[in-house]
Amino acid sequence: MKIGICDTTFARHDLATAAIDEIKQHVGNQQFIRRTVPGVKDLPVACKKLIEEGGCDIVMALGMPGPEKIDKNCAHEASTGLINAQLMTNTHILEVFVHEDEGTDQKDLKILADNRARSHAQNLVKMLFKPEKMRREAGKGMREGRPDVGPL
Amino acid sequence: MKIGICDTTFARHDLATAAIDEIKQHVGNQQFIRRTVPGVKDLPVACKKLIEEGGCDIVMALGMPGPEKIDKNCAHEASTGLINAQLMTNTHILEVFVHEDEGTDQKDLKILADNRARSHAQNLVKMLFKPEKMRREAGKGMREGRPDVGPL
Amino acid sequence: MKIGICDTTFARHDLATAAIDEIKQHVGNQQFIRRTVPGVKDLPVACKKLIEEGGCDIVMALGMPGPEKIDKNCAHEASTGLINAQLMTNTHILEVFVHEDEGTDQKDLKILADNRARSHAQNLVKMLFKPEKMRREAGKGMREGRPDVGPL
Amino acid sequence: MKIGICDTTFARHDLATAAIDEIKQHVGNQQFIRRTVPGVKDLPVACKKLIEEGGCDIVMALGMPGPEKIDKNCAHEASTGLINAQLMTNTHILEVFVHEDEGTDQKDLKILADNRARSHAQNLVKMLFKPEKMRREAGKGMREGRPDVGPL
Amino acid sequence: MKIGICDTTFARHDLATAAIDEIKQHVGNQQFIRRTVPGVKDLPVACKKLIEEGGCDIVMALGMPGPEKIDKNCAHEASTGLINAQLMTNTHILEVFVHEDEGTDQKDLKILADNRARSHAQNLVKMLFKPEKMRREAGKGMREGRPDVGPL
Repeated sequence: MKIGICDTTFARHDLATAAIDEIKQHVGNQQFIRRTVPGVKDLPVACKKLIEEGGCDIVMALGMPGPEKIDKNCAHEASTGLINAQLMTNTHILEVFVHEDEGTDQKDLKILADNRARSHAQNLVKMLFKPEKMRREAGKGMREGRPDVGPL
Repeated sequence: MKIGICDTTFARHDLATAAIDEIKQHVGNQQFIRRTVPGVKDLPVACKKLIEEGGCDIVMALGMPGPEKIDKNCAHEASTGLINAQLMTNTHILEVFVHEDEGTDQKDLKILADNRARSHAQNLVKMLFKPEKMRREAGKGMREGRPDVGPL
Repeated sequence: MKIGICDTTFARHDLATAAIDEIKQHVGNQQFIRRTVPGVKDLPVACKKLIEEGGCDIVMALGMPGPEKIDKNCAHEASTGLINAQLMTNTHILEVFVHEDEGTDQKDLKILADNRARSHAQNLVKMLFKPEKMRREAGKGMREGRPDVGPL
Repeated sequence: MKIGICDTTFARHDLATAAIDEIKQHVGNQQFIRRTVPGVKDLPVACKKLIEEGGCDIVMALGMPGPEKIDKNCAHEASTGLINAQLMTNTHILEVFVHEDEGTDQKDLKILADNRARSHAQNLVKMLFKPEKMRREAGKGMREGRPDVGPL
Repeated sequence: MKIGICDTTFARHDLATAAIDEIKQHVGNQQFIRRTVPGVKDLPVACKKLIEEGGCDIVMALGMPGPEKIDKNCAHEASTGLINAQLMTNTHILEVFVHEDEGTDQKDLKILADNRARSHAQNLVKMLFKPEKMRREAGKGMREGRPDVGPL
């Protein structure tokens, strides 16, 4: 399997390294292609190119939108673009966004960012290699980067 | 008929099982293809793949967006993507979203979630097998998961 | 001319019957194709299918979004999808949405809904059969379902 | 050059006539194709048809969105559609929207509407016939319908 | 390499000249194609044409949205269109937007605008000529036009 990993210079934590490390822990060495772009709005086309030009079977798009209203708009535009890129390629792109205002302080934010990247990396592993495991977790209130809330 | 059912691990109730059970009660065994993805933003491409790669005639996209502003944004982006996926395939995808803040408490939310999944499953049955029944309900103020409000 | 009429079971008034009646009053019998779907978010693909599979020359998309914030979001997503469906088919789809909170009471809302459906039906007649009449009304402050406000 | 002009019956001023008059004053008679549609949400497909079916080299899309929240939503959906129509055709569509709440009173609004239509018509002339003139105005704080604010 | 540069007459600073100057300082003379359009909503199709008709390998889209709510909407619509243009062409378009309300005063805004254009120009240089340098900056909290915030 060929896995694309795309992150940004705007982010304040190296989400890509965490994600790749987590994937390797679960399924050993895979073929990775990494790209870094300036910000989250540059992710959609970069991910699409990883799929169409780089031949990736799945891609992770990692970013950390800022805390302001304008940053929220950027994140929304990026997310819309990432969904469109998936629809145009029939390929999953797992969006891993950590908003800067999600942490109680910088330390908490850093832990959250690392955990979320690893949690989504585990999702990628399940989607590629253990779809029956993901299906057993359907409706279980899973969360990425924070404790699961569980089913009702 | 081949029916796609796509749900999420983020959801806090097994909407897919309720939907499939309801369809079977009305029209017996059909060919189902189930997929589970992490969250609602992963649904659009998963549903499109069920149609284009899995050969489904119709798909249900089931999810439970969280209660926060950011969750509402995710739901909006997912809905936009689901509509685009339909337009690209000329195939209906019935969106079944239950927002976590729709329930008065967890018990009420669970009942609502189950009812809504079943109600949309009934819609699917009508659209596939009894379009004339759906047409007779045009303008009748039907609701999914809550009591119908009826016509003016 | 082949006219597509698509409405919903969510709506609380039979907008489609009003629209068809109005068209017939102005230009006699035309070839109509009717479809009913659950809600406004199901309209875009249904209308696109009426055009591409049903051969319709124009379509009316009729719906009554609810009064809550979430209903407004649904209406926005549906409208975006309806515009995309038009762009993908180079065919007009006249959107006829009546929001539940537009009426002063249920009676007023019902009258408004009926009037708006008929007013848009008149627009359809002009677009198909009397484009020069519509052009003479350019910039005239026309309104659908309420009195025209007129030019400045 | 073939110029498409598309306006609405919802608008309260004849923006199209102002725009055409202004173009003629600057570059004499051109080949114009006019279309009138009910509202701004009907503009995207109408403009796309002017390009793809009418052979227009450029189009003006003129409308006057109302003052309410719902009107702002319509304008947003229309603008999104107009940008999509341009991307699908590789052809410029100049959007000329005058919001009803932009004027201090009806008289001011009418003057603004007329001025803005003429100002965008001048832009069209520059884009088609004098691109070097438009380039010299880059970063100059030009405004349409109100006095230019100038560079910082 | 062929670099497209697209800016607006609405902007209040000559962002394009700053960007081109910065690129030249880093990598000497390149082949530039410049286009100027009225406002940010005209950028998406102009950039797509620079790619598809002008043969550009990458494009910068420079604009200065105004401070009002309506200007924020325009910026959002333009950003969405710029992402779509990238997805349709598999080519990066670097968006350089400076909002008029970002500056503490006109002098600060002018400095910010010039710095941001130059900072994004440096990003372009890295993306085209030094991708390994951009990758080393992944997760480093880089900012354009303001001091970097650094990693957590």
